[in-house]
Amino acid sequence: MRPSGRTASQIRPLSFTRQFTAHAEGSVLVEFGNTKVICTASVVEGVPRFLKGKGQGWITAEYGMLPRATHSRNDREAARGKQGGRTMEIQRLIGRALRTAVDLSLLGENTITLDCDVIQADGGTRTASITGACVALVDAFSYMQAKGLLKTNPLKFMVAAVSVGMYQGNAVADLDYAEDSAAETDMNVVMTETGKIIEIQGTAEEAPFSFDEMQQMLALGSAAISDIVKAQKQALGQE
Amino acid sequence: MRPSGRTASQIRPLSFTRQFTAHAEGSVLVEFGNTKVICTASVVEGVPRFLKGKGQGWITAEYGMLPRATHSRNDREAARGKQGGRTMEIQRLIGRALRTAVDLSLLGENTITLDCDVIQADGGTRTASITGACVALVDAFSYMQAKGLLKTNPLKFMVAAVSVGMYQGNAVADLDYAEDSAAETDMNVVMTETGKIIEIQGTAEEAPFSFDEMQQMLALGSAAISDIVKAQKQALGQE
Amino acid sequence: MRPSGRTASQIRPLSFTRQFTAHAEGSVLVEFGNTKVICTASVVEGVPRFLKGKGQGWITAEYGMLPRATHSRNDREAARGKQGGRTMEIQRLIGRALRTAVDLSLLGENTITLDCDVIQADGGTRTASITGACVALVDAFSYMQAKGLLKTNPLKFMVAAVSVGMYQGNAVADLDYAEDSAAETDMNVVMTETGKIIEIQGTAEEAPFSFDEMQQMLALGSAAISDIVKAQKQALGQE
Amino acid sequence: MRPSGRTASQIRPLSFTRQFTAHAEGSVLVEFGNTKVICTASVVEGVPRFLKGKGQGWITAEYGMLPRATHSRNDREAARGKQGGRTMEIQRLIGRALRTAVDLSLLGENTITLDCDVIQADGGTRTASITGACVALVDAFSYMQAKGLLKTNPLKFMVAAVSVGMYQGNAVADLDYAEDSAAETDMNVVMTETGKIIEIQGTAEEAPFSFDEMQQMLALGSAAISDIVKAQKQALGQE
Amino acid sequence: MRPSGRTASQIRPLSFTRQFTAHAEGSVLVEFGNTKVICTASVVEGVPRFLKGKGQGWITAEYGMLPRATHSRNDREAARGKQGGRTMEIQRLIGRALRTAVDLSLLGENTITLDCDVIQADGGTRTASITGACVALVDAFSYMQAKGLLKTNPLKFMVAAVSVGMYQGNAVADLDYAEDSAAETDMNVVMTETGKIIEIQGTAEEAPFSFDEMQQMLALGSAAISDIVKAQKQALGQE
Amino acid sequence: MRPSGRTASQIRPLSFTRQFTAHAEGSVLVEFGNTKVICTASVVEGVPRFLKGKGQGWITAEYGMLPRATHSRNDREAARGKQGGRTMEIQRLIGRALRTAVDLSLLGENTITLDCDVIQADGGTRTASITGACVALVDAFSYMQAKGLLKTNPLKFMVAAVSVGMYQGNAVADLDYAEDSAAETDMNVVMTETGKIIEIQGTAEEAPFSFDEMQQMLALGSAAISDIVKAQKQALGQE
Repeated sequence: MRPSGRTASQIRPLSFTRQFTAHAEGSVLVEFGNTKVICTASVVEGVPRFLKGKGQGWITAEYGMLPRATHSRNDREAARGKQGGRTMEIQRLIGRALRTAVDLSLLGENTITLDCDVIQADGGTRTASITGACVALVDAFSYMQAKGLLKTNPLKFMVAAVSVGMYQGNAVADLDYAEDSAAETDMNVVMTETGKIIEIQGTAEEAPFSFDEMQQMLALGSAAISDIVKAQKQALGQE
Repeated sequence: MRPSGRTASQIRPLSFTRQFTAHAEGSVLVEFGNTKVICTASVVEGVPRFLKGKGQGWITAEYGMLPRATHSRNDREAARGKQGGRTMEIQRLIGRALRTAVDLSLLGENTITLDCDVIQADGGTRTASITGACVALVDAFSYMQAKGLLKTNPLKFMVAAVSVGMYQGNAVADLDYAEDSAAETDMNVVMTETGKIIEIQGTAEEAPFSFDEMQQMLALGSAAISDIVKAQKQALGQE
Repeated sequence: MRPSGRTASQIRPLSFTRQFTAHAEGSVLVEFGNTKVICTASVVEGVPRFLKGKGQGWITAEYGMLPRATHSRNDREAARGKQGGRTMEIQRLIGRALRTAVDLSLLGENTITLDCDVIQADGGTRTASITGACVALVDAFSYMQAKGLLKTNPLKFMVAAVSVGMYQGNAVADLDYAEDSAAETDMNVVMTETGKIIEIQGTAEEAPFSFDEMQQMLALGSAAISDIVKAQKQALGQE
Repeated sequence: MRPSGRTASQIRPLSFTRQFTAHAEGSVLVEFGNTKVICTASVVEGVPRFLKGKGQGWITAEYGMLPRATHSRNDREAARGKQGGRTMEIQRLIGRALRTAVDLSLLGENTITLDCDVIQADGGTRTASITGACVALVDAFSYMQAKGLLKTNPLKFMVAAVSVGMYQGNAVADLDYAEDSAAETDMNVVMTETGKIIEIQGTAEEAPFSFDEMQQMLALGSAAISDIVKAQKQALGQE
Repeated sequence: MRPSGRTASQIRPLSFTRQFTAHAEGSVLVEFGNTKVICTASVVEGVPRFLKGKGQGWITAEYGMLPRATHSRNDREAARGKQGGRTMEIQRLIGRALRTAVDLSLLGENTITLDCDVIQADGGTRTASITGACVALVDAFSYMQAKGLLKTNPLKFMVAAVSVGMYQGNAVADLDYAEDSAAETDMNVVMTETGKIIEIQGTAEEAPFSFDEMQQMLALGSAAISDIVKAQKQALGQE
Repeated sequence: MRPSGRTASQIRPLSFTRQFTAHAEGSVLVEFGNTKVICTASVVEGVPRFLKGKGQGWITAEYGMLPRATHSRNDREAARGKQGGRTMEIQRLIGRALRTAVDLSLLGENTITLDCDVIQADGGTRTASITGACVALVDAFSYMQAKGLLKTNPLKFMVAAVSVGMYQGNAVADLDYAEDSAAETDMNVVMTETGKIIEIQGTAEEAPFSFDEMQQMLALGSAAISDIVKAQKQALGQE
């Protein structure tokens, strides 16, 4: 029995609020149950130094959490004077995942920065960030096409992500905080809309896991992502 | 004629959404027109080192802006590795203003941190932050009283703030970004619910201003704050 | 009765030592009683990035305190690895105040950096800094005109500053440390030589203040600044 | 055909030099072909603040690269003033992996810091680090037992790691730099000596990968780790 | 012929202004010609962590330069966010030199921080700092004895310093900036009042130097320090 | 009697392992007894900003210690976020010493960075670093000449360094940690192959030292360096 009463494969209610804030080219509030993340996609002319003159674009990501997005208050990273290892790890993951989805050579010498800011955390903030950032990115590409900044849509495929894990001996999908903090194993899966793997990160929190457990988790993750991609497309009016 | 079509003394539509996020003891989304700030009040046991053993509490504030709260994207302060001068100036102002409103000796050795995070900026983010933080603080005090952490409500009076300025030769209240960026003078006024001044900061942006202009701005500010306090109390169900 | 025995409107003995150090284009030791600040104006070719190619100049300021300028030793900011919020707030104020006094379009693509370093503190260091920096700035402009770097003097008017406050229920001018640390309200006033306001920052330290108290403080501030401007001009040999 | 001429499942020559440096309780130079990492295990009394008084120990890791461990020189992180995201990600992985292998409740209130410093890099530095750190950890535990600091060996199982990937359409084990920089997919696998998974991190570098490709990579990784554990045990004189 | 017209062994006019600022237990403005340094000695109860409970005191030093102490403006270290290597090197030297002069076991668990802030630089700022800091230290010890904080004077001997160098083939004492920037060799000598060496640092700026040249420089340095110690004692009213 | 049983003038066994790592243009493991330092010389096109367009090259150095190079573990400087004063002091010394040995005008607009990383410390790490870096530099120059990047060898002379000191009243050469930590005086001497002085830094650790003691130490240092230069040349196949 899961704390939330969900079945093993059941994901939390999922919602995307597009145009959540006014200024960004793409701005999405993504909610996986009580996990809420503002994902914006900002288009900026130019590319980082190492890409200058190569005729391609760049996608990068930054991740943050409001200090009181969590049960107890966390120090503000800006006040501490540096981003922690967890933040770095997550924002590198988001950037890497979304770059895979884009043909950078079609983007021109433009950079898109994906900002994922968690305003309320209840487990799965990194996978929610990837999922929401993809929707914001689609909106930013639409904006760029409408403005004539892009000739072709550089998106190769939609990307979505979910966490799966072993909880009390069973594989479960889309862990909330209550499960996540007690899970034996936690695995984040990032996939394309066609079911190929972009990134998989599985960590034994309590105990090493077997190949068989991994297969169970992957199967749940794959099914969940299929549902999540549907919700993304619906939010985008594509289905 | 103001860009927004408002009269000189007219403030923007004002709203407070309490319990905006789940974890903080006080959590308020405050909106002054298109300026939107999440204000949370977090109760933490203990006080800073310089107050230890003095039997009193502390109120402090931190301020941030999501990178794409503004027209063009700003660098994330956590990534740059330090808070800028503007941020420091604003969060010191917020903390100072709210401390004035509280009898710290009634707070016990507890600290309340007010986090004001701007998710959308359209002028007046610091005054909106003070105004929203006051409502969040009231909610945090209610929580503490309900939990038995406080015997008496330590709030001495409500606090609200507004910006006023000289725009095209006229004093106007509650400037939005269009006015703010073109104003001759910008003045932030923080007052108590009974019309006394807590902080006043007037800056000649374009040209020095006269005593007479200052009086006009102050009068507008005073009237606006009276309206804002009403809205705060209504949001708190006190009127 | 003021601790110093001064009358309510009486400012401390004021002195300006020009050419206090040898290398800067303007170098002034300003003393307001026991508050002593070295203010230098350094002329550097070029402007910050955001002004490049706009054909105008820039004025900026930095503020510091020797670690033992105060009763007990403060940490050296260079050793701590960052400037504190108070320092940032003050140096932003100094820069803003002096920029208002200068027609930047007449300055060419030059930057003048005003360094205000407190060697002994007894209250009012920020207002002394503004007052002394203005004299150093005038000397730097003279230097630039003599060297042919400027065709016209870009100074629009002299600027001076003073603190005023409510001390034991009475408005007083030019607070020293003994008063400042016990004042109910502290207000810094920056004005032009013709009596217009450039910046006003009033803060309720102990208790909110009334409009009437503000008027009293402003009146004292205005009178004091008139005296201070006279002293500046005398030091510059203009009167 | 692999650049090195190895078969798909063949790992590079592997060596462990114990007591490589004199001072650490465990000190191992691990070599996977041309990748060379100094791994030391340092025993320090006490635990981090969050564990104080809980009667358990802690394992943590830090990772670094000499500036010229690589083809072209990298900036020294100490000189740049911060560790990059890649470094943070790797040292978090090393620490997590080795903590899983240890019964921290048997360690007493002691901390073991694993320092992994790459002196020459040719791909797979993070997996070499984990593999070498495990051997250094075993030596540190032996030291502690010999000194009477531990009653029981807290090691639950040996841990080893290897990278696998898809290179020119084929799954290959233990990629060197030439392969790594051209691989379609890169996967790091950390396993116990009994073949259970501790951590798996697969990343589509060039193109998303299928479940089938993942199985191939996992199978290679599992076989390679079995070889690597044998080498670890041989180096430790256990086989 | 030296640029200043001085003879090879002649030092610059030397002056010490005691009680230069009001708050420090020792406060000296030291002038070697146009080099001017404010040296303060601050007495603080307690010692650094590594000395706690050992029943001895500590002497430490910090060094800074006002941004415009030099011909062209240097960045403010507090604004850059770190002290440069030169600053670190100098303040370590000052602290080391003065610690040698003090019997720390007679100091009690007190720390004396020597702050040396250069307000005008014309060569030899580090040797002027040591020389001035010694006078400030003596005053601080007098203060402590007067207050009953010390039973015995912990000073073992006076310390003074001077730079010597090879300039146009000749050994010269107390180089000013014009010489220093053109010298073949620069040597800083720190000695006791009885002519023993505390620290010697000789650097070939242009060309390696011979043993013979070193002897010449040392002889000049020794003679100069004898004069400087006399001036210190005279300033302290001891001769 | 020295702890190591060596005679007063006897240096430790000295070895140079060239091509110690694969990627650097010069790479040397230098060993003075148990002190072991990896010294690499990296050739990079271009010069620092302050030399651009001057048609000359630059030599710079960085120094580090693996955290467990020492008896007890030191914090990693990269993790602490800054290099300490000791590190700065040492790397400035190394760079200065080697620059003296090179005719920078023959180097073209190239920079050579000397990285000296201590993997095991037993006293004399800075002098070992200079000595090893010189050999690495020679190898880098050979590489550059072979590649046609240099027409002439810019090396003016070999450079070597050694520490000498007063230990239990006697002058001794090449102190190991046991002596160094108990020495009355420590002096580092850097000399050319022809016996001229490049840098001399003598510090009274316990007690000021006399001119006579300095002469004794210098004589020992000079003799030791003569031996060390021989070993350098032998390692380079020059003798």
